[in-house]
Amino acid sequence: MREDDPAIENIAVPSVRDADGAIAPDFRAAAEAAVEGEDRAALKTLIAGLHEADLGDLIESLHPDARPRLIELLGADFDFTALTELDETVRVEILQQLKPWTVAERIRDLDSDDAVYILEDLDEDEKNNILKYIPAPERVALQRSLDYPEESAGRRMQTEFIAVPPFWTVGRTIDYMRETEDLPETFYEIFVVDPAYRLIGSVPLDKLLRTRRAVLLTAVKTDQRHVVTASDDQEDVARLFEHYNLVSAPVVDEAGRLVGVITIDDVVDVIQEEADEDLRAMAGVGSDEELSDSVAYTARGRLPWLVVNLGTAFLAAFIIALFTGTIEKMVALAVLMPIVASMGGNAANQTMTVAVRALATKDLGSHNARRVVLREVLVGLCNGVFLAVLLGIAAAAWFSNPQLGGVIAAALVVNMLAAGLFGILIPLAIHKLKLDPAVASGVFVTTVTDSVGFFTFLGFASIWFSYL
Amino acid sequence: MREDDPAIENIAVPSVRDADGAIAPDFRAAAEAAVEGEDRAALKTLIAGLHEADLGDLIESLHPDARPRLIELLGADFDFTALTELDETVRVEILQQLKPWTVAERIRDLDSDDAVYILEDLDEDEKNNILKYIPAPERVALQRSLDYPEESAGRRMQTEFIAVPPFWTVGRTIDYMRETEDLPETFYEIFVVDPAYRLIGSVPLDKLLRTRRAVLLTAVKTDQRHVVTASDDQEDVARLFEHYNLVSAPVVDEAGRLVGVITIDDVVDVIQEEADEDLRAMAGVGSDEELSDSVAYTARGRLPWLVVNLGTAFLAAFIIALFTGTIEKMVALAVLMPIVASMGGNAANQTMTVAVRALATKDLGSHNARRVVLREVLVGLCNGVFLAVLLGIAAAAWFSNPQLGGVIAAALVVNMLAAGLFGILIPLAIHKLKLDPAVASGVFVTTVTDSVGFFTFLGFASIWFSYL
Repeated sequence: MREDDPAIENIAVPSVRDADGAIAPDFRAAAEAAVEGEDRAALKTLIAGLHEADLGDLIESLHPDARPRLIELLGADFDFTALTELDETVRVEILQQLKPWTVAERIRDLDSDDAVYILEDLDEDEKNNILKYIPAPERVALQRSLDYPEESAGRRMQTEFIAVPPFWTVGRTIDYMRETEDLPETFYEIFVVDPAYRLIGSVPLDKLLRTRRAVLLTAVKTDQRHVVTASDDQEDVARLFEHYNLVSAPVVDEAGRLVGVITIDDVVDVIQEEADEDLRAMAGVGSDEELSDSVAYTARGRLPWLVVNLGTAFLAAFIIALFTGTIEKMVALAVLMPIVASMGGNAANQTMTVAVRALATKDLGSHNARRVVLREVLVGLCNGVFLAVLLGIAAAAWFSNPQLGGVIAAALVVNMLAAGLFGILIPLAIHKLKLDPAVASGVFVTTVTDSVGFFTFLGFASIWFSYL
Repeated sequence: MREDDPAIENIAVPSVRDADGAIAPDFRAAAEAAVEGEDRAALKTLIAGLHEADLGDLIESLHPDARPRLIELLGADFDFTALTELDETVRVEILQQLKPWTVAERIRDLDSDDAVYILEDLDEDEKNNILKYIPAPERVALQRSLDYPEESAGRRMQTEFIAVPPFWTVGRTIDYMRETEDLPETFYEIFVVDPAYRLIGSVPLDKLLRTRRAVLLTAVKTDQRHVVTASDDQEDVARLFEHYNLVSAPVVDEAGRLVGVITIDDVVDVIQEEADEDLRAMAGVGSDEELSDSVAYTARGRLPWLVVNLGTAFLAAFIIALFTGTIEKMVALAVLMPIVASMGGNAANQTMTVAVRALATKDLGSHNARRVVLREVLVGLCNGVFLAVLLGIAAAAWFSNPQLGGVIAAALVVNMLAAGLFGILIPLAIHKLKLDPAVASGVFVTTVTDSVGFFTFLGFASIWFSYL
């Protein structure tokens, strides 16, 4: 709250971001100088009023050695929430360099979801080394969240929430909130529970504020139709939030007892990650690859897909090898054949992209699969015929051979049909097998369009030759 | 609120969704029968307590003719918010079949952002035909939102919000909210404004609830660091929400006056759309293509990218044509050449995908471009060398020709290097020109890897022949 504090306002602090939106070089240099000179006061002034997200970006922009030193220098003035904004690799590296008891001391101040987020990527030993410095009740709560599977609601939930009995009035609830010190940092609804902590309903804050003090909570509570179970997958939770425009949702355990609350800010990250994962999976990039990863790690992560592609490329080569006799008769075929394969690959990629995303968002399912398959095949046919005319004329003109133009045009129509058909059928089939269509579809689909493309073009050419 | 209403609870209503999460066929059939038989009571029972999002899905699952009939039959019991959940094509089709004054009457009840969302895709005449039935003050407010550019914050904002003067206390503010009927449907913060409606600060509801009645709002308001201008692009707004974990943000006009509020539920849709757009743009699919679009519309939308690809495929063919003499000497070259091009294309696609997303999320910028380019080139080199060994051995074994293995291995290393280099440089250059790298990168990058792949492999082969 800079404007209330003229002492801070009057010191010249370089602006945080440059025109690109990245951390400004001047600002980074000032931070580096302060860390270098161990000038705690200067550093504190510099980061005063900085949002945790900006603080995170600043840390990422620093030299790896300077990062833990900045955190140690700031001590209690460093908000550990900023660590949740870092790339995983950077966060783990920093945590390994800080003293376990410092980390333990400081993550106790955080909301439990942030503490879990910081701890979860460490290995078992490192995690326990930190947890042992945390007092029993808090440790048990963190441990319970960490025991839920990765990418589950239990990992993302915050165990701090407000739960009150149904016989309370609006007035009593408001008084309770005014008098209690240890409330969650932000919250959007309060929960009504029975003595066994089973969820009865919830009251959004705007409704609480609009209701007179004497009214009972049971009279204003909304039914809790959107309840998350701690073991639910985070993607399903994201889908629920998106579909019903939620801002927060209660999380219950297997016995139906309220154990936490999950809020939209966590879900926004999941939505973003999920869309990114589809994009990366289709390109054969690992979902955990980050810009800060090393060359060796990145190269190893991308290799498997390239090896698979090498295999499928050989398959296409074998098909060409069936027709070496045909190519020897007319080398123009070798010149033109990649065009048919490439066009099919592109068309299939269009269809597949639409299919993969529609499956992910559940817009595509058994109820409309038949219609969408038919649509894709017809789209392939339409564009196939149009492009075949262009390609046929161009090829005929180039090699002064109208029949060659006819052969390539026919092959293109067939390959574009195959692209539409397999571009949609393959993701649907993979989805039916409960696998992720984004990961595997690409390999199969381009194998099909390459193979069909070379086979039809060279095959049609050899039939044509046999009639010459 | 079904559980409070035993009359509704006791009627057997088929469950809304099947195991896949799609609208259950039984439920759809029941709705269709009710519409067919004009049985308003049955339809009302069926959709009682249905969330607007589920109601939207139900409408989309119906036959196009049944959709407006369901809405007319339900009359005032149909929540027009459900229309915001539909695909654009479906929504426009329905609106064109409803009477303009019915639409006008019903969208008056909605929050302004929903009303604008429903109106914005209609053409000018249709829009004005509806607007003329809306009383002047509301019409002017809607018109003002509609006058902001498409995909701007002004279009997404809600013009209903709570703004109070700074000299009010917490108690007076709560009393005001209890006494005022016409408040926004949901809100997360109240705004403090001066007499000219210029923003002074805001108070989140949780803070308001925790503060004693006598306290002045100026004492609890937080500085408004995250203010949106109505003309801001919705993507920039989404980035702001994501970065700072916001739930709502005030929107001001050019003069700094508070004109609306933008909330996270609108932003979640934007985040989702934006990631989708990148994915589609890279595959050459229009960002507005929807699963419900017709074959002709879809085919036309996908054609431009395919025509561009036809051009670049010809470029690759011209390069092959330079080497027909070489291919005639050894037809095995024609068999193997697509492998080199395909591997380069895949590696470039990996690099490009990472680059495009990192540019979109501002993780990649001038501050780290040099390091990332170097990383990508080295990744290309590492994987290139590894895969070249595999490919070289396989090719040498297949054609019993070790020298051919050497030629293809050397060509692959060069093409993988080119893939890494151009896979990152091309998106960076396009971004520098203020264009969207997702749209244009794909064409250029695969053109480079195809051309370099064919040229190096066939070129190295002809050099090798000249030494034979």
